Amino acid sequence: MVHRIGEQFARLSAGRTPTLFERRWWSQTALNLAMQDSLFKTQLFRFIDVLPSVTDDAQVVTLAREYLGDGDTELFGAQWGLKALAATTLGARLSGKAIRSQVEQIARTFIAGATVEEAAPRLTNLWQQGQAWSVDLLGEATISDREADRYRDRCLEALTKLARVTSLWPSVPLLERDHLGPIPRVQLSLKISALSPHLDPIDPEGSYCSVAARLRPILDLAMRLPASLIFDMEQAETKTLLLEIFTRLFAEPSYKVYPYAGLALQAYHRETARDIEGLLSWVRQRGAPITIRLVKGAYWDSDTIRYRQRGWAVPLFEHKMETDANYESLTHLMLSQSSVIRPAFGTHNLRTLAHIEAVAESLGLPPEAWEYQMIFGMAEPFQFAVTQYGRRLRLYTPVGDLLPGMAYLVRRLLENTSNESFLRKEYVESQPLSTLLAPPVLEGLSQKQPPLPQPADIQVFRNEPQRNFAQADSRVAMEQALATVRSQLGRHWTLSSEGLRLTGPLMESRNPGRPDEVVGKVSSASSADVEQAVRRAAQAWESWRVTTVERRVDIIHTAASLMRKRRDELAAWEILECGKPWREADADLAEAIDFLEFYASEWRRLAPPRRLGQEPGELNQRLYSPRGVTAVIAPWNFPLAIPTGMVSAALVTGNPVIFKPSERSPMMGHWLTEILREAGVPEGVFCCLTGGPDIGRALVRHPEIVTIAFTGSKDVGLGILKDASTLMLGQQMVKRVLAEMGGKNAIIVDETADLDDAIAGVVSSFTSYAGQKCSACSRAIVHVAIYDGFLERLKDAVLNLRVGNPEEPGTQVGPVIDQRAQAKIQEYIEIGKKEARLLVEGIVSGPGWYVGPTVFVDVVPAHRVAQEEIFGPILAVMKASSFQEALTLANSTAYALTGGVYSRSPANLELARQRFDVGNLYLNRPITGALVGRQPFGGHRLSGLGAKAGGEEYLTQFVVTRVVSEQTLRRGFAPPE
Amino acid sequence: MVHRIGEQFARLSAGRTPTLFERRWWSQTALNLAMQDSLFKTQLFRFIDVLPSVTDDAQVVTLAREYLGDGDTELFGAQWGLKALAATTLGARLSGKAIRSQVEQIARTFIAGATVEEAAPRLTNLWQQGQAWSVDLLGEATISDREADRYRDRCLEALTKLARVTSLWPSVPLLERDHLGPIPRVQLSLKISALSPHLDPIDPEGSYCSVAARLRPILDLAMRLPASLIFDMEQAETKTLLLEIFTRLFAEPSYKVYPYAGLALQAYHRETARDIEGLLSWVRQRGAPITIRLVKGAYWDSDTIRYRQRGWAVPLFEHKMETDANYESLTHLMLSQSSVIRPAFGTHNLRTLAHIEAVAESLGLPPEAWEYQMIFGMAEPFQFAVTQYGRRLRLYTPVGDLLPGMAYLVRRLLENTSNESFLRKEYVESQPLSTLLAPPVLEGLSQKQPPLPQPADIQVFRNEPQRNFAQADSRVAMEQALATVRSQLGRHWTLSSEGLRLTGPLMESRNPGRPDEVVGKVSSASSADVEQAVRRAAQAWESWRVTTVERRVDIIHTAASLMRKRRDELAAWEILECGKPWREADADLAEAIDFLEFYASEWRRLAPPRRLGQEPGELNQRLYSPRGVTAVIAPWNFPLAIPTGMVSAALVTGNPVIFKPSERSPMMGHWLTEILREAGVPEGVFCCLTGGPDIGRALVRHPEIVTIAFTGSKDVGLGILKDASTLMLGQQMVKRVLAEMGGKNAIIVDETADLDDAIAGVVSSFTSYAGQKCSACSRAIVHVAIYDGFLERLKDAVLNLRVGNPEEPGTQVGPVIDQRAQAKIQEYIEIGKKEARLLVEGIVSGPGWYVGPTVFVDVVPAHRVAQEEIFGPILAVMKASSFQEALTLANSTAYALTGGVYSRSPANLELARQRFDVGNLYLNRPITGALVGRQPFGGHRLSGLGAKAGGEEYLTQFVVTRVVSEQTLRRGFAPPE
Repeated sequence: MVHRIGEQFARLSAGRTPTLFERRWWSQTALNLAMQDSLFKTQLFRFIDVLPSVTDDAQVVTLAREYLGDGDTELFGAQWGLKALAATTLGARLSGKAIRSQVEQIARTFIAGATVEEAAPRLTNLWQQGQAWSVDLLGEATISDREADRYRDRCLEALTKLARVTSLWPSVPLLERDHLGPIPRVQLSLKISALSPHLDPIDPEGSYCSVAARLRPILDLAMRLPASLIFDMEQAETKTLLLEIFTRLFAEPSYKVYPYAGLALQAYHRETARDIEGLLSWVRQRGAPITIRLVKGAYWDSDTIRYRQRGWAVPLFEHKMETDANYESLTHLMLSQSSVIRPAFGTHNLRTLAHIEAVAESLGLPPEAWEYQMIFGMAEPFQFAVTQYGRRLRLYTPVGDLLPGMAYLVRRLLENTSNESFLRKEYVESQPLSTLLAPPVLEGLSQKQPPLPQPADIQVFRNEPQRNFAQADSRVAMEQALATVRSQLGRHWTLSSEGLRLTGPLMESRNPGRPDEVVGKVSSASSADVEQAVRRAAQAWESWRVTTVERRVDIIHTAASLMRKRRDELAAWEILECGKPWREADADLAEAIDFLEFYASEWRRLAPPRRLGQEPGELNQRLYSPRGVTAVIAPWNFPLAIPTGMVSAALVTGNPVIFKPSERSPMMGHWLTEILREAGVPEGVFCCLTGGPDIGRALVRHPEIVTIAFTGSKDVGLGILKDASTLMLGQQMVKRVLAEMGGKNAIIVDETADLDDAIAGVVSSFTSYAGQKCSACSRAIVHVAIYDGFLERLKDAVLNLRVGNPEEPGTQVGPVIDQRAQAKIQEYIEIGKKEARLLVEGIVSGPGWYVGPTVFVDVVPAHRVAQEEIFGPILAVMKASSFQEALTLANSTAYALTGGVYSRSPANLELARQRFDVGNLYLNRPITGALVGRQPFGGHRLSGLGAKAGGEEYLTQFVVTRVVSEQTLRRGFAPPE
Repeated sequence: MVHRIGEQFARLSAGRTPTLFERRWWSQTALNLAMQDSLFKTQLFRFIDVLPSVTDDAQVVTLAREYLGDGDTELFGAQWGLKALAATTLGARLSGKAIRSQVEQIARTFIAGATVEEAAPRLTNLWQQGQAWSVDLLGEATISDREADRYRDRCLEALTKLARVTSLWPSVPLLERDHLGPIPRVQLSLKISALSPHLDPIDPEGSYCSVAARLRPILDLAMRLPASLIFDMEQAETKTLLLEIFTRLFAEPSYKVYPYAGLALQAYHRETARDIEGLLSWVRQRGAPITIRLVKGAYWDSDTIRYRQRGWAVPLFEHKMETDANYESLTHLMLSQSSVIRPAFGTHNLRTLAHIEAVAESLGLPPEAWEYQMIFGMAEPFQFAVTQYGRRLRLYTPVGDLLPGMAYLVRRLLENTSNESFLRKEYVESQPLSTLLAPPVLEGLSQKQPPLPQPADIQVFRNEPQRNFAQADSRVAMEQALATVRSQLGRHWTLSSEGLRLTGPLMESRNPGRPDEVVGKVSSASSADVEQAVRRAAQAWESWRVTTVERRVDIIHTAASLMRKRRDELAAWEILECGKPWREADADLAEAIDFLEFYASEWRRLAPPRRLGQEPGELNQRLYSPRGVTAVIAPWNFPLAIPTGMVSAALVTGNPVIFKPSERSPMMGHWLTEILREAGVPEGVFCCLTGGPDIGRALVRHPEIVTIAFTGSKDVGLGILKDASTLMLGQQMVKRVLAEMGGKNAIIVDETADLDDAIAGVVSSFTSYAGQKCSACSRAIVHVAIYDGFLERLKDAVLNLRVGNPEEPGTQVGPVIDQRAQAKIQEYIEIGKKEARLLVEGIVSGPGWYVGPTVFVDVVPAHRVAQEEIFGPILAVMKASSFQEALTLANSTAYALTGGVYSRSPANLELARQRFDVGNLYLNRPITGALVGRQPFGGHRLSGLGAKAGGEEYLTQFVVTRVVSEQTLRRGFAPPE
């Protein structure tokens, strides 16, 4: 039956070609080429993506060359392996105007108009052809309340205008009534994330409040008109949240009766059947029906990539065939429940269409009981066929500017050209109808998606995934951990196995968000304790250095397991002791575990002797031996991860360690010590000397301390370096200092940048953990062409940050670490106000050590706020008239730690790769959050010395390399090789 | 015919088994096992080798376990995969006495007696059985004139005694006359290398004088008796020299008529046919006949290994079959010339015997025209057969102590058990006679030996071979280069393209061997020049850093080619400027070339970006960028190699370099500069500031110098480190200091050591280049059990060193670098005399800065000569009562550079691997002469900081590591992976 119906549709659509595949210049060459060459496709689509933000025609040509090669010199053709192309096609026509006009043409295929007014004639035209529609208002990403309000207002305005336009239209019964009754002519698809800058699954309550407040007026209007409202589904991470918002809102008494609400669900999502079941029982309680628009899902690539990057199990089906099969199964579910829902099927697949028909027929449903949805400008022959067949078809019709429309356009192009696109198979590859109509086959597919990388697999390092706070159980666990820790506040903690009794004063740790709250108390070290600790460490070294590599590696892996077990509790301590928001605290835990796992795995790899040379009769081996007693002097801003990294590197390589945690985070130092003890690090091999600078200095100058691993400020670091380079009486080894110091990190935003990304990236880079990361952004260098627009959006975004108590999951910016830090930052704000122009100053109050995110603009290199590390949520924005100038500005401090570039110019990105003089350069992403192993971290110039943390060269800093060369030729013979 | 004769021999030998294969315990188990398992064979033979030097029975058991595993715990059997063995054999019998007695039994199979008296009855017995003999006096390696004299005296004594013994014997006509007349009953085989401690092919004249002086009395006696004298052939390196000595000596008027001289030639040597032709024409001139003993050759393994280690073409045939074929061809040559020579054929191969018979028969020779030679105790069935067949057989019969006899024994065991041993094939593997008698087949063998590794192959690094001064053309080239350089002495040299005009005074370089001789003059730098040089370097950096890796690598390879071209000339400059003996100067050239080739190849390998992690949607790359202006502060003791290494590493990685050569070797600095210019290093990127400490200090403190590569003394190095760690005004980067400093290097000699090797190793390690190497030995730590014997031989060896003008090829110890050095060393000699006991003080005189090699004994750690670096040919000997104590002594200085161990105890060697705390540890070899790539060089503690020179981690010290992380996910899609 499916085949029979499919053939009918095929006949009805015959002789037509989708607009996209018509034989214009670019469908002949560029698009065909894109389908053959995925690298070219990337370049082409990236080029299309950047186009609307470039206003200068000459630059359009430059960018075309950067992306696609130089047509004039035949490079274009040669590069892509197509000689014939070089002379005749893209190359020959490279004029900015022509390119822009070509791309705009394509865009207009998919976008009905820039405004509702502009789109109205095309919508009218559809109606006249017997096709309904659902308008989608294209827009930029929403990064402020103002932008969210604007989207709300645009929705309201669109509803009003569309109602006015459609009121004049003739009646088309097929489109105005379904099996449950009359349906409105106007349908608006809503992008929920555009309705709030604070939509975040970590905080469902806050998200709901923010979104619902803007949804209600829209809903009120829709009810009045009436009009239909459909929630679009977005990235997988927000799916549960959107479902929650949907069901919560439409269960509100005022909206309970509204029968035209609906939402899209994605067949590629493994949970969709469950979600539909949930909705069905919810709908039965509620009473009024809802529309469910079943689509295959448009975020597969990005969701898959993002989840994999984070190490999370991908919740989507891995194979297109599975999605197709799921779609068919969901079709049956939806159609069988059409008494309470209005089924809508979004598809451009002939097989799917025929299958829906067959299912409906078998269920004996009337044709008005469901509708088809297709995308405006796509698969027109099928649109025609379905309409001819007498079915209700609704076209998903975008309305909006070209600039935000490009994201939409590229998504459509990808869909059309993907290997699995039905349209491509039919119209480009001309596959036979029988193949196209065959049911999805699941055999031969690996039925399960690859299992989540197991951190227990100690042979291959994988990053510990951060918590997915979109999952309720993760949120509950953190709430509970916070409660547990709260119940223990103020206690005096002693180590479960106290080796060395510390003789310094008791040290109190306070909550930066509530300074009157004592988080905990621990004993601190006196200078006399240093001597004793070093002596014990030197003694303990004898057995630790000969402990097998396997054993030491095992101990470090065990520590990782222990941290994993106590993860939420430790994160909760960190939230309370250091004022970190949830995600930041959780990330610190994940990074600490990463360091343990990475260094353990690395040492297992590096430790075995390696033969050098292959000459017979001699055996040369490289061996590593531990250097000796190591001092680790750690900061408070990553109070677990950074010391864990330094300490575990020293331990696993066979050194005893004396660890001085920051006096600002003694509790976290205490927990690290407990964990290492429990994991099996022997007494004496590791000890924790909580204390201030005097303890650090005593360690640095001690003649038996041979390695000093330090992370902290530049001034302290340079002081350590100087101290350590002076030979002390009795010193038997040149000290090695590893110092990770400060930064004055810049992000360059050029005129080709994606501003949605750039603003979000700059804001998160300068405000996350209140700017108290050495990697934090403290300068933004913005191209003059976009300077003003950038500042405008930046200001809004900064004003909309949620500054407050980090115990609340929705908090984006917490307090700074203590009063001293607050005072220093406020001093810099005063300096900035004198030097530069204040764009925005966040105002905060309350008992904690809060500092509002603050931005200075028109900053020049001579300003102190352009040169000095502030270590708070303060940003200095500088203007550059060229990318070269921006780079010069970026490099014009004595620091070289992190840096970032937001640009869609391949040439500029390449220039940055070469000349942006920082240890960690980030392109088109925020500049904090380096991952162990993948982004080894560390700077140079005055930002640090030593190898990058979390990188392959780190461990060898804790060892001496010994080469043993044996003459194996004896009495004229050598062992067999 | 060969087959027919072979079968006859086989019949005659039937029913007998060689003694070695008789079914004693060890032939059943150990020897069989050795033939199956080459690792076991190594261990077994090494154990046998060490036995005679161990006097303590308990230690014999310990060593047996170290080598062979523990029989008591069944480990022995398990380890070698033979369970049955564990309970019943070696293990069960592990008593020191039993083991020793077993091995002595085996030894007695091959050695006729400890003395001529002891051997006499067995020689008499042979004579009675119709077998002649040639006595070989076993002895230790000769490392002093006294030992050479002793060998001479033993030869004289043996001749006298043998003459007396044999005079009483009955006549055996077959053995007393050959085709050329009567032949003496007494034949002595001479080990020529035992007749002089100065036999060295680099100095044929000196070698001849030394050897001939001791040979003449022996020859005089042999002529009187008469007796026959045969030169044994030894390692390939001395072959030409021995031939020269032979022909020169026996052409002397007094010896021209002596008809019983002979020498052995080796069929495995590719030149033997040519050598025989040469001898034949020489013999015709001379008149009296000589004996040529043709053997296959017994040094194949060690010669091959040594030549390969040095990168020299191996002059021996690669395949046994080729040797066999050559033997047969030489057989024909010799037999066809028997009118002027007495052919003697050493073989234990049935096929060879039969072939000789067949050739002789075809030539119509009478059986007395040649003789067979076999080894005493080996292949007795064939001995029997040949005698029965009525042929003259002479047995090569060792006489001597068990200790020196072990080297001989092991060689015999190896021969018998090798895969290609005829005896093994017949008596162990029982191969069919037809196979055994088949002619050698050359097809299928790679006819040519593998070509010499080409240094031009820039992809794979290979060490530049040092000159083989056994070759006359190498010697001539060096003589000529010295003459060329001499003709240019005293000139003022300016750079061919002078960029920066130096404004310091003219600097004179003087010959340390003749201080009144000015080697050359160059301009030096003033402090003002430093500023200018840094400024120019910083400017030049801009283009150098963006020069492609390929180009920079090419320039460095070009520099290597230029050095190779000017190699002898540069070595000659070094001989004259720095007083290096030939080989030392040549080695410095080879090492300089190595550094260039190695760093260029390494950088080609390391420079490309490396991706980190494999997550989709992100591209993390590790990039290296040059750090910036680099100062290279170089020493004079490896005046080309060390600066070449530091400079080329900095240059190839993209840094500009300011090079300060030592003021003690300005000429070599000049030549390095010239070569780099010529190779294409641009103006400004490299400059040479010849000068003293003030220039070095100005460079170190300059704020724009970011990397300092220093090699020199500890005090200067620590001063640099301290200076460099103080932030200077305007300094924008933490300076990195790479410092290779001093050493107080020890060699441990334990009671199992091979003393021949140990004494030679200690002597060369402390005296080569007059001890002026940071790697030089300055302490010997000797086990009490061998202490006195060690000192006795050491004293002789030191007294016999040739101290003098390094222009003479035979010089072993030249002058020290200058008067200041001489005075300092002499001061330490005075200190040593007060602190410890003087064993030997080398007395030298003359105009140069000579210091005689000096040894102090009974030194304890508190002595200054045990702690302070002297940098001269001074050795402090310490006594240790255990290996553990020796290690403690060795580690009891603040240095950790090189160290060595001479031991044949696997457990001690392993302990040293683990606990001898030095950067470069050498086992059973001298401790100087680390090779680039194979033995990366450098120390720790106060000996240095930074990665090892010539190792894979060296280059990354000159760069900063940058990690670039790009978010490649854009608009929901990422480039294909």
